[in-house]
Amino acid sequence: MNAPHAFEAPQEPWATLTHRPVPDAMRAALRAHFGPRCSEALAVRQQHGRDESPIDVAPPDLVVFAESNEDVVAVLTLAHAHHVPVIPYGAGTSLEGHLLAVQGGVSLDVSRMNRILAVHADDLTVTVQAGVTRHQLNAELRHLGLFFPIDPGADASLGGMTATRASGTNAVRYGTMRENVLGLTVATPQGELIRTGTRARKSSAGYDLTRLYVGSEGTLGVVCEVTLRLYPLPEAVSAAVCSFPSIDAAVRTTIAIIQMGVPIARCELLDAHAVRAVNRHDRLSLPESPMLLMEFHGSEAGVQEQAQTVQELARDMGGTDFEWATTPEDRTRLWTARHHAYLSALQMRPGCRCVTTDTCVPISRLAESIQASVAEVEDSGLPYFIVGHVGDGNFHMGYLIDPDQPQERAVAERLSAQMVSRALALEGTCTGEHGIGLHKQSFLLDEAGAGAVAQMQALKRALDPHNIMNPGKIFSLG
Amino acid sequence: MNAPHAFEAPQEPWATLTHRPVPDAMRAALRAHFGPRCSEALAVRQQHGRDESPIDVAPPDLVVFAESNEDVVAVLTLAHAHHVPVIPYGAGTSLEGHLLAVQGGVSLDVSRMNRILAVHADDLTVTVQAGVTRHQLNAELRHLGLFFPIDPGADASLGGMTATRASGTNAVRYGTMRENVLGLTVATPQGELIRTGTRARKSSAGYDLTRLYVGSEGTLGVVCEVTLRLYPLPEAVSAAVCSFPSIDAAVRTTIAIIQMGVPIARCELLDAHAVRAVNRHDRLSLPESPMLLMEFHGSEAGVQEQAQTVQELARDMGGTDFEWATTPEDRTRLWTARHHAYLSALQMRPGCRCVTTDTCVPISRLAESIQASVAEVEDSGLPYFIVGHVGDGNFHMGYLIDPDQPQERAVAERLSAQMVSRALALEGTCTGEHGIGLHKQSFLLDEAGAGAVAQMQALKRALDPHNIMNPGKIFSLG
Repeated sequence: MNAPHAFEAPQEPWATLTHRPVPDAMRAALRAHFGPRCSEALAVRQQHGRDESPIDVAPPDLVVFAESNEDVVAVLTLAHAHHVPVIPYGAGTSLEGHLLAVQGGVSLDVSRMNRILAVHADDLTVTVQAGVTRHQLNAELRHLGLFFPIDPGADASLGGMTATRASGTNAVRYGTMRENVLGLTVATPQGELIRTGTRARKSSAGYDLTRLYVGSEGTLGVVCEVTLRLYPLPEAVSAAVCSFPSIDAAVRTTIAIIQMGVPIARCELLDAHAVRAVNRHDRLSLPESPMLLMEFHGSEAGVQEQAQTVQELARDMGGTDFEWATTPEDRTRLWTARHHAYLSALQMRPGCRCVTTDTCVPISRLAESIQASVAEVEDSGLPYFIVGHVGDGNFHMGYLIDPDQPQERAVAERLSAQMVSRALALEGTCTGEHGIGLHKQSFLLDEAGAGAVAQMQALKRALDPHNIMNPGKIFSLG
Repeated sequence: MNAPHAFEAPQEPWATLTHRPVPDAMRAALRAHFGPRCSEALAVRQQHGRDESPIDVAPPDLVVFAESNEDVVAVLTLAHAHHVPVIPYGAGTSLEGHLLAVQGGVSLDVSRMNRILAVHADDLTVTVQAGVTRHQLNAELRHLGLFFPIDPGADASLGGMTATRASGTNAVRYGTMRENVLGLTVATPQGELIRTGTRARKSSAGYDLTRLYVGSEGTLGVVCEVTLRLYPLPEAVSAAVCSFPSIDAAVRTTIAIIQMGVPIARCELLDAHAVRAVNRHDRLSLPESPMLLMEFHGSEAGVQEQAQTVQELARDMGGTDFEWATTPEDRTRLWTARHHAYLSALQMRPGCRCVTTDTCVPISRLAESIQASVAEVEDSGLPYFIVGHVGDGNFHMGYLIDPDQPQERAVAERLSAQMVSRALALEGTCTGEHGIGLHKQSFLLDEAGAGAVAQMQALKRALDPHNIMNPGKIFSLG
C-alpha cells in the first residue's frame, strides 16, 4: 500500500452530538404500555444500535417492540411530549449508519408488525405492515402468480426499504421503491396517523407526500403501512452468465443493451474478485473474470428474442462462456451466489470489515467511472471487490480493511470520497440506493448544494420541529 | 333533465380571497428590467388569467415574459420583497383553474424559455427549459431515434407538465411525469436557484425534492429547467381500434390486458358519444359504439404477440371490427382524432362549455366506477362524453353545459362530485392527472384527510412563508 500513514482516520461529526436521554417518566410510561416488549437490556440495545455499516455501535436508551399502529402512536406521543429521539428499526440491514442512536432515545422496533393486510390481486396491489420482509411478501404472493420485484439483497423490511428508497437487481426493469410505493400510513412526529396516496396507480392530488417519505430515512415520521405495486410473474424467465476479458467490455455491453431499449430485468456486474469469492463461498465454478449476470422476463418468444440480442452484443465485446440457467433451481443458485457476494468477499480476508461505496452515474459515464476507481484501488493495494446494478449505472466498491489498522480505514474512506467526487463530476449521485445516513452527509452537500439541503432542513423543521425523528441523519440541524 | 332547479350554482371559495396588488415601486422595477416584455395590457392580462377550465377569468395585474433563469430570479426577488403573488405560466393548458390570478400579482410567462439545453442520447436524458413544449421536444428528438412519451393531449410546456404531474395516453407503459423527471432547476420563492436530482437514473440522496416540485402546481417555486428520461423509438409500433357492445365490455377487456401483464403502450376508451364527435370533426367513419384505441410498442415479433393476445381477450368480451393502423399516417390520424375528442365534443353542442372530471381508481373498480357515473348522467339528461386512459384506471367525463343555464352547471358539478366520491370510496383518487387547482380543494381534503393536508400546508409555509407562489391553489392557507 502506498503511503498508508498519509491519511488520518476520518472524523465522525456525529460523535459531537448531545445525548438526549429518555427521562424517567417516559421510561415508566413505556414500561407500563409495553410491559415485556420494552427492553433496557444492554444486548438488546446494542443489537438495535448498529446496522450493516462499519460504524461503531451507538445503542439507544431503550428498545420497544411495536405490534400495532397504536403502539407506534403511543411511543411518538410520549417522545413528542418529552422531546426524545425515536429511531424506527425494521430488519437492521441499512448500510450507512441509519439505525445508530447517535443522540440516544428509543429504538422503535417494528419487526413484529409483520402482517400482510390486503392483497388485491386484481389490481396488482398489496398493503403490508412495515415489518413485513420482502421474502415473506414474495412467499405469500407466489401462489397468486404475482411478485414484488424490489430486491436490495438483504431480506429487508418493507418499511425500511421505503425509508431508504431501496433498489437492487430488478430496478433496471421495474424501478425502485420510488416508483413502486403507491401509498403509506405514516405516524407523524406528533403521534398522528396520516395516509398518503391511494390504491390508484397515479394521482395529481396535491403534494407527493408519499415520495417525500420514501427515502426520508425515518427522519420525518414512522412508516406503519405500505401499499405497493405488484407484477404478474412473467410467463418465462431465463438467466445467463457471460464472462468478459475486462470490466470495460462488460460495462460497454451493458450500455449497448440499455441504449437499444432491451427490457432486461436484471443486469449485474461482478468483477473477478467477486466471482472468486462467490465461487469459494457457494462452491461454484464460474470463470474468474469479470462477469455479467443477467435475467430476462417476458413471454417465451420475448425472452428468447432479448437473450439473442444480448448474446450478440456480448459477443461483439468479447463476451465468452455464455451459460444459461432456465430452471428455477439453477437461477436460484446463481442469484443466491450474487446476494452472497458481500459475505463471500468478507471471507476472502478473515477478520476484515468492509467499507462499501455506492454511486450511480448516467450510463454512458459508467465505464470511465469504474475504470478510474479500479485504477485508484489497485494503486492503494487494498483488497476490494466490485458488484453493480450496472443497467442503472449503479455500482458498489467494497474495500476490505483490517479494523486494527486505522490507516486502512482512512485509505478506504479516501478512495470512497474520490469515487463519489468522480460520480458527481460525471453528473451522477453520491448514492444510488444505500442512502445518506451518517456517512454521506458531506457528499449530499456537494451533490445537492447548500440551497437544496437548506430546503430539506426547512421541510424537516416544518414536520418535526423538536427533531425527534432519527436525529443526526441525512444532515445536521446544528 | 330531472329537477334542474334543485341545485344551486356552486360556491367559489376563492372569490373571497383578498387581492394583493403589485405596488408601484415593483411595477417600475419590472418595467425597467423587462422593458417591452412587461405588459399591463388588458388583453394580455386576460389571456394570462384563464386556462382551459370553465372557471371565469381572473387576470393578473401584469404579465412578464421571462427569457432566462435570471429573469425569473429578478421577478421572484422583487415579489419576495413586496409579498406579491407570482403565477408561473407555460402554455396555458391547465384544466382546474391553476393559472387564475385569484389574488392578483404577476403572471410569469416562461414560454420564451424554450431552448433544449442538452440532449444526452447515450444516456437517454434531455435537459430543457421550462417553456419547451412536448411537440417541440419530440420534433427535436426524432432524428436521434428517441422520444419523450408523456402525452397529456394538449401541446403543454414541460414546466407546466412538471407542475401538474401530467400523464396521458402513454402512462400505462411509460409512467407519468412523476417517473420521468430526473431533476429540476427551480427558482425558490426567495429568488435562489437550486438544483434537485442529477442525471443518474436513481438516487437515495436525501429528500426527494424533485418529486415534491412535480405536481406542486407552481405553489413552491418556479420550474426553470427540467431533466427528463427519454426512450428509444420502438422498433415496431402498431395501433388498433376495436369496438365493443358496451363500455363494460371494453373496460373488462382492459382489465384483462393489465392483469395479464401485456406491456401495452396505450389503451384508451372512447364512449359512443366521443366516437360520434371525432367522426364528425375528423371525418372518420369509426363504428359509433364504445371503442378501445390501443397502441403496441416493441420488436416486430413482440408487437405481434401483444396484438394477438389482446385480440383474443377482446373477442372473448364481444369486441368486433378490430382494425389495424400500422402506417405512421394512419396512426397519426387516429391519435389526432383522439386528441381532438374534447374539441370535437364541444362542437356537438354549439355554444356549450365543458365541465370535465378526472378520477382514477384501482383497475378492478373501473367498470363499476364508469357504469355508475353513466347511469347518473343519463338520468340527469345532460349531454356528455367519456374518454379514458383506462389502462391506468383513469377516465374523464365531460359534461356539456349551456353557460346561460346556471342550473346545468350545478347539475354537472353535482355529477362530478358524485363521481369523485365514488372514486374515493373505491380507493381511488379525485384526480389522476388534472390536478387540484382551484376546483378540487374540497375533494383533496376528502381524499387525503385533514392531517395530510395540514402537512402539505406546513411544507408550503416552510418553503414559501409569504405565500407568494401561486396562492390560493391546492389548498387555502386560511
